[in-house]
Amino acid sequence: MIQECGGGITGPKGFRAAGIHCGVKRSKKDLALLLSDAPAACGAVFTQNMVPAAPVLVDREQLEQSPFVRALVVNSGNANACTGDRGMDDARTMVRATAQQLRLHESEVLVSSTGVIGQFLPIEKITAGITSAAGQLQKTAHTAAAEAIMTTDTFVKELAVTVTVDGIPVTLGGMAKGSGMIAPNMATMLAFVTTDAAIAPPLLQETVKRVADRSFNRITVDGDTSTNDMLAVLANGLAGNRVLVSPKDAGYKDFAEALEHLCVRLSKMIVLDGEGATKFVEVQVNGARSEEDAVKAARAIASSSLVKTAINGEDANWGRILAAVGNAGIDFRPADVEISFGDLPILERNYRIDFSEEKAKEILSKKEILLRVQLNGGPGSASFWTCDLSREYVAINANYRT
Amino acid sequence: MIQECGGGITGPKGFRAAGIHCGVKRSKKDLALLLSDAPAACGAVFTQNMVPAAPVLVDREQLEQSPFVRALVVNSGNANACTGDRGMDDARTMVRATAQQLRLHESEVLVSSTGVIGQFLPIEKITAGITSAAGQLQKTAHTAAAEAIMTTDTFVKELAVTVTVDGIPVTLGGMAKGSGMIAPNMATMLAFVTTDAAIAPPLLQETVKRVADRSFNRITVDGDTSTNDMLAVLANGLAGNRVLVSPKDAGYKDFAEALEHLCVRLSKMIVLDGEGATKFVEVQVNGARSEEDAVKAARAIASSSLVKTAINGEDANWGRILAAVGNAGIDFRPADVEISFGDLPILERNYRIDFSEEKAKEILSKKEILLRVQLNGGPGSASFWTCDLSREYVAINANYRT
Repeated sequence: MIQECGGGITGPKGFRAAGIHCGVKRSKKDLALLLSDAPAACGAVFTQNMVPAAPVLVDREQLEQSPFVRALVVNSGNANACTGDRGMDDARTMVRATAQQLRLHESEVLVSSTGVIGQFLPIEKITAGITSAAGQLQKTAHTAAAEAIMTTDTFVKELAVTVTVDGIPVTLGGMAKGSGMIAPNMATMLAFVTTDAAIAPPLLQETVKRVADRSFNRITVDGDTSTNDMLAVLANGLAGNRVLVSPKDAGYKDFAEALEHLCVRLSKMIVLDGEGATKFVEVQVNGARSEEDAVKAARAIASSSLVKTAINGEDANWGRILAAVGNAGIDFRPADVEISFGDLPILERNYRIDFSEEKAKEILSKKEILLRVQLNGGPGSASFWTCDLSREYVAINANYRT
Repeated sequence: MIQECGGGITGPKGFRAAGIHCGVKRSKKDLALLLSDAPAACGAVFTQNMVPAAPVLVDREQLEQSPFVRALVVNSGNANACTGDRGMDDARTMVRATAQQLRLHESEVLVSSTGVIGQFLPIEKITAGITSAAGQLQKTAHTAAAEAIMTTDTFVKELAVTVTVDGIPVTLGGMAKGSGMIAPNMATMLAFVTTDAAIAPPLLQETVKRVADRSFNRITVDGDTSTNDMLAVLANGLAGNRVLVSPKDAGYKDFAEALEHLCVRLSKMIVLDGEGATKFVEVQVNGARSEEDAVKAARAIASSSLVKTAINGEDANWGRILAAVGNAGIDFRPADVEISFGDLPILERNYRIDFSEEKAKEILSKKEILLRVQLNGGPGSASFWTCDLSREYVAINANYRT
């Protein structure tokens, strides 16, 4: 059984963290450091943007050398993206400084950055920050670390869960940040998960990929995939369970479910904190010919500016929802489609419409909205999470750099 | 030589039109009628949305029967989409009423609707309107007709051009409407073009498809493809040129260029009038490996909410532009990319950035903006037209039905 227990990335055994201000931002925390007492198997997925940021390129190199990681360093306020050779040097400098301070091999350190694209890092401030953070690592600093990776986020996104794996209690902790440039194409933001479970790197990697596809890859705020996205899961094995090496191993299913639970919860937090978002929307598609088709339909609905603005205006504009499914590139019979908000049917088969606008308005005036689309054409189901599109989104993004 | 001459769909010989109020909308014009004195070859492209509206389905049937058309009836204020069997009946009733009033065969009439999705047409009002409009057909009523097809459009979109085809002067006239649910997937709005040129139906259809791909399919306002989109070109041959039957015929190239010129101009008008748009943006991509890749890159830039909000905020945020190209699904070398606004280089090769923010701000403060991206990787070029994303867009769409 999966139990949520608050906390964050320092919840699992053997992880310490720090979150400090080093001067990339004016006054807010901007540097997070995470250390595992034991080598941790790492599974990770990265942005599929063709312009990956320097830290993404460096991390891919690192993980090709070895899938075991001891530390992670993240700065916010500057993405170190589109910064060429100097950006690569800076990312490697962050790795080297962290390894030196924590007495690790360089191959045991991952690096990540988030913030403005196309500016060079203030690398002296960051290396000084790494020195300072290395001296402040604490078992209790999960929230400070989660704060230090935020950009336009308005609240901290972290959680820990416990689960029993083959008789042994295991903890998983996670932190994430959004909240613009979120689109469903890979691990579409920063998310870091720690666990004291023991799991072999190949199985962990396979699990991380599958879980990312069912959590972070099913959210959208604005349809733009960032240059810096990553999800990294560090598993240090200190819980003492027998190492999971095969999907058939006792307890693997429990571990994987707990990881998915944690990642879905973090994903929803990102959507809830979408730039300018005033509403959280779960889009559930059922009755598609396949799960893949259901995902396509749900993504099309969740990505439609017209659907998202209608929800912002608390308008049960089902025609836009049906038109969005029509743009999803899947095969279905329009006349068979049913649409409901919460428990209120809006559109019934054969385009029958007979609902109370007042009742619809009441449901749409809530902060969390469940939108269900039944295609009545097969067994495929999928959920997708998104937010509304508001005037505030535009206001935030029109003047992001200034 | 192509010459613009004002006017609209009644510019070519043998076309008359009417634009009236029949009661679908409260007080604005909502019904347009177009009649050709001679049978006109028709080339048309329709929405690729899987939920095509009833008039789209009816027109496809009509054109399968015969590619010759005499009349077109269009209502605004109600899209007759997602209306099932009754919607199909209503669309056919519009065809029948028009044929009766104008003494035509039913197969010679096209029908089109635009407006709210999912409501039944007030069909008695519309048939009464058709009777009334049939009595008011005039050579001078092009603007009234163009007004009658508007929904959230803020200005009339029409134009006529003349060109010499194999020694014979030919006129082409067009009208179009936007301005939401505009996305680059087929003829993504309503546009109607008349011409007195003589051209065989198969060659006209082939030409219309190619021209649509290079004009209306290269604009985007909000990325949603409507259920009702269509472009229909009616060529009645009254100019008296020798009938064009092959791309190699003398004058064909002139005709095709004039049609493309007209369609590009109408496309740009649609973007200029995009919902909430404050700026018109031409995205020019050069140096892609192929034209197809250039179109993909230009579309990705023009569709990015983050790029569009930055332009709204007059912010030269080139990082978002590069990130959008990175999401386009094409192969290129990020370090080779150059970006400029107007004649001001913003990003040079190897991520060199050295521009005056004041000069950039000055360029971006204009109403028309040219954004050029040079990929330096091949011969492929393409232009795409879009507008900024403003708070007003959200305001318009949050409360469209009310």
